[in-house]
Amino acid sequence: MAAEAAVREQAEAVRRLKQDKADPDEIAKEVAKLLEMKAQLGGDEGKHKFVLKTPKGTRDYSPKQMAIRERVFNAIIACFKRHGAEVIDTPVFELKETLTGKYGEDSKLIYDLKDQGGELLSLRYDLTVPFARYLAMNKITNIKRYHIAKVYRRDNPAMTRGRYREFYQCDFDIAGQFDPMIPDAECLKIVHEILSDLQLGDFLVKVNDRRILDGMFAVCGVPDSKFRTICSSVDKLDKVPWEEVRSEMVGEKGLSPEAADRIGEYVQLHGGLDLIERLLQDPKLSQNKLAKEGLGDMKLLFEYLTLFGITGKISFDLSLARGLDYYTGVIFEAVLLQQENDHVEEPVSVGSVAGGGRYDGLVGMFDPKGRKVPCVGVSIGIERIFSILEQRVEASEEKIRTTETQVLVASAQKKLLEERLKLISELWDAGIKAEVLYKKNPKLLNQLQYCEDTGIPLVAIVGEQELKDGVVKLRVVATREEVNIRREDLVEEIRMRTSQP
Amino acid sequence: MAAEAAVREQAEAVRRLKQDKADPDEIAKEVAKLLEMKAQLGGDEGKHKFVLKTPKGTRDYSPKQMAIRERVFNAIIACFKRHGAEVIDTPVFELKETLTGKYGEDSKLIYDLKDQGGELLSLRYDLTVPFARYLAMNKITNIKRYHIAKVYRRDNPAMTRGRYREFYQCDFDIAGQFDPMIPDAECLKIVHEILSDLQLGDFLVKVNDRRILDGMFAVCGVPDSKFRTICSSVDKLDKVPWEEVRSEMVGEKGLSPEAADRIGEYVQLHGGLDLIERLLQDPKLSQNKLAKEGLGDMKLLFEYLTLFGITGKISFDLSLARGLDYYTGVIFEAVLLQQENDHVEEPVSVGSVAGGGRYDGLVGMFDPKGRKVPCVGVSIGIERIFSILEQRVEASEEKIRTTETQVLVASAQKKLLEERLKLISELWDAGIKAEVLYKKNPKLLNQLQYCEDTGIPLVAIVGEQELKDGVVKLRVVATREEVNIRREDLVEEIRMRTSQP
Repeated sequence: MAAEAAVREQAEAVRRLKQDKADPDEIAKEVAKLLEMKAQLGGDEGKHKFVLKTPKGTRDYSPKQMAIRERVFNAIIACFKRHGAEVIDTPVFELKETLTGKYGEDSKLIYDLKDQGGELLSLRYDLTVPFARYLAMNKITNIKRYHIAKVYRRDNPAMTRGRYREFYQCDFDIAGQFDPMIPDAECLKIVHEILSDLQLGDFLVKVNDRRILDGMFAVCGVPDSKFRTICSSVDKLDKVPWEEVRSEMVGEKGLSPEAADRIGEYVQLHGGLDLIERLLQDPKLSQNKLAKEGLGDMKLLFEYLTLFGITGKISFDLSLARGLDYYTGVIFEAVLLQQENDHVEEPVSVGSVAGGGRYDGLVGMFDPKGRKVPCVGVSIGIERIFSILEQRVEASEEKIRTTETQVLVASAQKKLLEERLKLISELWDAGIKAEVLYKKNPKLLNQLQYCEDTGIPLVAIVGEQELKDGVVKLRVVATREEVNIRREDLVEEIRMRTSQP
Repeated sequence: MAAEAAVREQAEAVRRLKQDKADPDEIAKEVAKLLEMKAQLGGDEGKHKFVLKTPKGTRDYSPKQMAIRERVFNAIIACFKRHGAEVIDTPVFELKETLTGKYGEDSKLIYDLKDQGGELLSLRYDLTVPFARYLAMNKITNIKRYHIAKVYRRDNPAMTRGRYREFYQCDFDIAGQFDPMIPDAECLKIVHEILSDLQLGDFLVKVNDRRILDGMFAVCGVPDSKFRTICSSVDKLDKVPWEEVRSEMVGEKGLSPEAADRIGEYVQLHGGLDLIERLLQDPKLSQNKLAKEGLGDMKLLFEYLTLFGITGKISFDLSLARGLDYYTGVIFEAVLLQQENDHVEEPVSVGSVAGGGRYDGLVGMFDPKGRKVPCVGVSIGIERIFSILEQRVEASEEKIRTTETQVLVASAQKKLLEERLKLISELWDAGIKAEVLYKKNPKLLNQLQYCEDTGIPLVAIVGEQELKDGVVKLRVVATREEVNIRREDLVEEIRMRTSQP
């Protein structure tokens, strides 16, 4: 049996990977392969065997995961609504050419649909480009909207760290011609509110400006043609040390060592208003028009953030670059900081959970006349937040209810299915959340156990005697207390006992 | 200028279509083409011109449409939760082979993704097959869940009638081995509750059973091999008259005229418990095992529906067939009835808004050992409901708010931006939904106009005098009443004045 030998070989491979403490994703992949091989082998009915899995880089959400997901969404939506946002939705796919030329090198990660005749389509890569298309198409020059939906990237998934090929984005954007930095400041306030609300631990929002970056490159002696590529090197500074980035600039990208060293001096700077003031006096930067504009706006931004009382968690950071092509002004990124403890001197970043910036040119790319609509927005990286909260729930052994059922309609005796159905129908019609076991004659013990398992707080028990007396026995699952309630008062009693404090 | 001539020609074509009162979708298509041609012509900057549109058969949702959509979703979700359902989510695409062989002739409507290396993927066609895959993959034998998500069909769109290529399904399913017809009855109760809640006008739920259909085909003399195809002919009876269906059966599908006529007698029958009793005595049907089983269960179902008090809107209808391959027992479909008026004798169906049935074999198709998990479920056809409600809102001129903002923070004098930002920050932090105009010195009139336009009920006005006195002037937009509120009482005052009655 060659197939059985292959399974044994695969099992051995998995064992070795685990022993070597290999990458968890790698192990998971090989385990999946093993299970699949076993499944193929196990079947003996000669029918076609399906590979039972979701596509690479995607996942189902179980009811428990959905409960956590809804909590997070509710917090985020509440914040977006608090700031007066409307909501829109767009199709999951766009015309392929709508996405072309918006994402630079990342365009290779776009999912295309098969050409089945008709238009060429691609799955959306983010919510920003569809938003810009929507504005141009409907000639909207002024809107504050949020959009929560899935986006698609054929990237290398790292699912244990919350990186998927199908993932949610929660975007809030302000489009329109306004006085400088007021909407930009609101976006940062929103990030601050959401990350505080969700209690994910300490965080830091790094802020920079594309104009400051470009001005910096210019005064450091980077040729215009190299701005983009040097910018994408700088973007790596949150993951790799300066020495490596420098050698990429000089070695791979052909920048002069002197220019690289000048950049090196700038990109290690971070601070607040004091740093902005200092750079406004910087003999080189202050001579550059773009940098001066950017710094002037950065100063204004920090004044507004001071009024919002949130500068404590905001850092002007010259190393922040962000990859996407379409940014034109302020850019920012929020990172969670590792909890401090005795062994760690300084809090370390564990990854980005929100980001955004200003993109004043994107809508104009879609408008036939090139009319611009200035935009600034923020995107909350919900998947990493899910991962963190999921792990926290697992660790805390907190019991999460996945239904909201208030009462189970039960009976202690046989032949009362009809009476149970009659009662539950009354409760449903009165708006009570109620369940009944789908059995003709369930045991009372099983009915009570169902309540324990699913967290249903009350049981409404009908029996021969109760029916005669015109009452229902209401049992509180937690205390086992039982009281007879007149049938006409039952709805009110259930409402009262299950109303949120 | 050949291009301009082409535009004129197209404009003429559109004019003719309108004059001929052609199909609105057809007109819309030609108008879009015209606009596109005009846009191409209009641009003179030499840059590439985008076609500004969403893919065929899809649409954006504007904030107003989203407000209507949320109302409908909230009513449906409330009902699903009232019945104790959990919620799950699955990826928008599945492995192609997961969808293969589940949809019969309709499989040609599935969207495939381009082969970019790796797995072959398709967009989901419904939520039922992903649900079955989820159950088999996670070895779940018992769950009551809902799932609301978009599905994709490369069908001929008829957008004015609410038929899209990307559309929402709202599914509620009960999986597990239970006593007969109790979950089936609950699904019908749910349809009844939702359609009543949404106040869409009168409706009727047609019910049948695949076993009754198959038994009927057998006793009418349809050969086994033709069951499927004759069933799909019967499925057309809600759209075309019997004579046409009969000639398809006899002419195209080679059924004997006698068999067709026997079918014709059955499929015009519809009724309630009385009809079921009569058919249980039918000399031919009562001899067929499948039909007898189906009729027995139908009787039980109607007994439960009687307990739920909903038989008034449920009709056992032998002409109901439903196309999908996977149904094995009860099937049903809800249709809205046209409002009765003097000119119409009998209410006429204007289209299906919900459907479902029992599919006991689907999960087994995914299980390596073929283990079955009986399932019954209902799918609410939300798009047609949207269309109806949207038209109703348009007609009623009801003003729908698209934000929930409680208060606009405003000022009457200049140079008070900082004070506005300080105040709004306090309000946001207290959970008040507040907006501010993004201008340094907006006119009071413009600020008040913004409230009128967007339905914001209150304005909090800061001015020099108010700041000195430690108060804020609160203005009620509707009545123009103004009162000074102490700053520390402002949050409470806004809450009180904007709390829902």
